[in-house]
Amino acid sequence: MKIICSKANLLTGINIVLKAVPAKTTMTVLECILIKVDNDEIKLESNDMELAIETRIEGEVIEEGSIAINAKIFSDIVRKLPDSDVTIESDRDNNTHINCDNVNFNIPAREGDEFPALPVIQKDKKITLSELTLKDIIRQTVFSISDNENNVMMTGELFEITGNKLRVVALDGHRISIRKVDLRDNFGNYKVIVPGKALSEIIKILSGENSNDVNIYFSDKNVMFELSDTIILSRIIEGEYYKIDQMISNDFETHININKQQLLNSIDRAMPLVKETDKKPIIIGIDDSNISLKMNTQIGKYEDSINITKDGKDILIGFNPKFIMDVLKNIDDESIDIYLINSKAPCFIKNKDESYIYLILPVNISNN
Amino acid sequence: MKIICSKANLLTGINIVLKAVPAKTTMTVLECILIKVDNDEIKLESNDMELAIETRIEGEVIEEGSIAINAKIFSDIVRKLPDSDVTIESDRDNNTHINCDNVNFNIPAREGDEFPALPVIQKDKKITLSELTLKDIIRQTVFSISDNENNVMMTGELFEITGNKLRVVALDGHRISIRKVDLRDNFGNYKVIVPGKALSEIIKILSGENSNDVNIYFSDKNVMFELSDTIILSRIIEGEYYKIDQMISNDFETHININKQQLLNSIDRAMPLVKETDKKPIIIGIDDSNISLKMNTQIGKYEDSINITKDGKDILIGFNPKFIMDVLKNIDDESIDIYLINSKAPCFIKNKDESYIYLILPVNISNN
Repeated sequence: MKIICSKANLLTGINIVLKAVPAKTTMTVLECILIKVDNDEIKLESNDMELAIETRIEGEVIEEGSIAINAKIFSDIVRKLPDSDVTIESDRDNNTHINCDNVNFNIPAREGDEFPALPVIQKDKKITLSELTLKDIIRQTVFSISDNENNVMMTGELFEITGNKLRVVALDGHRISIRKVDLRDNFGNYKVIVPGKALSEIIKILSGENSNDVNIYFSDKNVMFELSDTIILSRIIEGEYYKIDQMISNDFETHININKQQLLNSIDRAMPLVKETDKKPIIIGIDDSNISLKMNTQIGKYEDSINITKDGKDILIGFNPKFIMDVLKNIDDESIDIYLINSKAPCFIKNKDESYIYLILPVNISNN
Repeated sequence: MKIICSKANLLTGINIVLKAVPAKTTMTVLECILIKVDNDEIKLESNDMELAIETRIEGEVIEEGSIAINAKIFSDIVRKLPDSDVTIESDRDNNTHINCDNVNFNIPAREGDEFPALPVIQKDKKITLSELTLKDIIRQTVFSISDNENNVMMTGELFEITGNKLRVVALDGHRISIRKVDLRDNFGNYKVIVPGKALSEIIKILSGENSNDVNIYFSDKNVMFELSDTIILSRIIEGEYYKIDQMISNDFETHININKQQLLNSIDRAMPLVKETDKKPIIIGIDDSNISLKMNTQIGKYEDSINITKDGKDILIGFNPKFIMDVLKNIDDESIDIYLINSKAPCFIKNKDESYIYLILPVNISNN
């Protein structure tokens, strides 16, 4: 195998595939990046057996072949190379020679065939949307998956396609996050649960360009995200997702409209009083023109108030401050609408067309 | 105690004194910042019993007094306050009320008297230099102190004043770093060994302004750095420092002049091949117009070469790459002069007027 490519292109490719190199694994070949050169194309590949990434890089193919090279060492070396053309050449024993200007490295590598092959995906079930939209809807929901592996379903995110509608749902038993978007075509009806960890890596790779498209292909075991030069494959979580429609209600007794940043800053300001061992709620009191925020912990007491517009009843209700902040950090609107029923019922943060709906369960505040 | 000051001034002061708040201590009062209000002045103080810092902040004194408040909680709270005036008021039980716009905190604090008093320093032995110069000479030497507490003397840095000359020396058994500066007056003759850890914190506080002066006062047990609004007190290390003059030689067999950044980049580029458990030297070969750099470890092989101007003999010599990089990172010159004798004698990196001299011992390369 012998290729020549610019350091910049090589590094861009490495940074993409690094997202699926496992930190710990018993299969040492997975600690490698596969460099695969065939059909006059140079591809880098990584695979942690849950998520696999393949990306194409621009460059000149001199000899086809493939090697698997330790990802950390390879990326550390390339990162520090001069900004020039890099020649990578491996011999029959997989010793890999990396040359760039006067700089020469010789690194033992492994046979490319040792690297697990990518699963083959049927391309019949597909949707297309922009990188920007996909990045937004994942970012705005993925924070509310559970990291508790005992309930695998909660560690994933539902992608539900109904004709030209896509709905994405994440929940963890205390909150539900829902994003809906209109697709540009009628793509059919299907549902798939994608692991949240995979999605967290995917949003790092998505460029966020509105003009770039992503195709998403769904199969029985896997989902594939196809970008212009990169494909990302994730296993899916099998099973039936929670029936969330029955948890969503449009009833409310209190509705407020509030500046998002002011509310976020005010809750964040109370966080120095929160200890890991003494989780206390933020207590929100709503009257006609004001929202008061209070927290009372072993460390001290906090009080703040913000002007709002409100309709409906006064209310006093407590929340895990992190759950409210997670939502506020990910909404792009300047002001938000919050709907409440009573101090024991979930609160809803949603916009008029319900393109986002966040449900958060309150915390009992009778002891605070 | 009651004061009013801007959030910005308060935070600047907190960030300065945080440098002497110990991460771990059995004396819990040292985890606090002392707010000391007397003589119409507001001062913040911290003390880890090695280093003590006192800084004055602008503000309005309404009632004198003092309290000690947990440094982490206080700084976290102030950091997130609105950019406005902050009122801090403590009652008879040291409950401290922090108000800023609509925001109110109530935090239990401690009696100011519990906080250890600053040592009193005789002000007869003194030198004056600019903050910029002091910051530079510490930065350019302190990296070569030892962190091995078994040899306390090596954990400190020698400040040696001889008339209008200041010489600062740090060494760790493998290398010596020396910086000399001319002082603006004849201040007398004295020597003091200042703990390196204290100096590492002091350079974070020094503004690096050439127009700001620092007075340094020397006493039997302590050294005091007096900035415009801040004083920093450090204990000193007692004893006689190493006789370094006999280790410094002007003899050489090989002299090269080399671009500093090129050499630094080339050594840094080899670092991905270095493992904690397999410390291999960087092997430098010098011939008439070239320096070659090689490294050979379990991970792989590295080779690079750089053009130089040289006089004297060819040489092959090995070094701990970190020791060379530490020096190169801290020299401000674009090109540097390196003087060598043979592969077993120390190398010297120094400039023409010897305002800096770095000695680095080589590593045996017979097995590499």
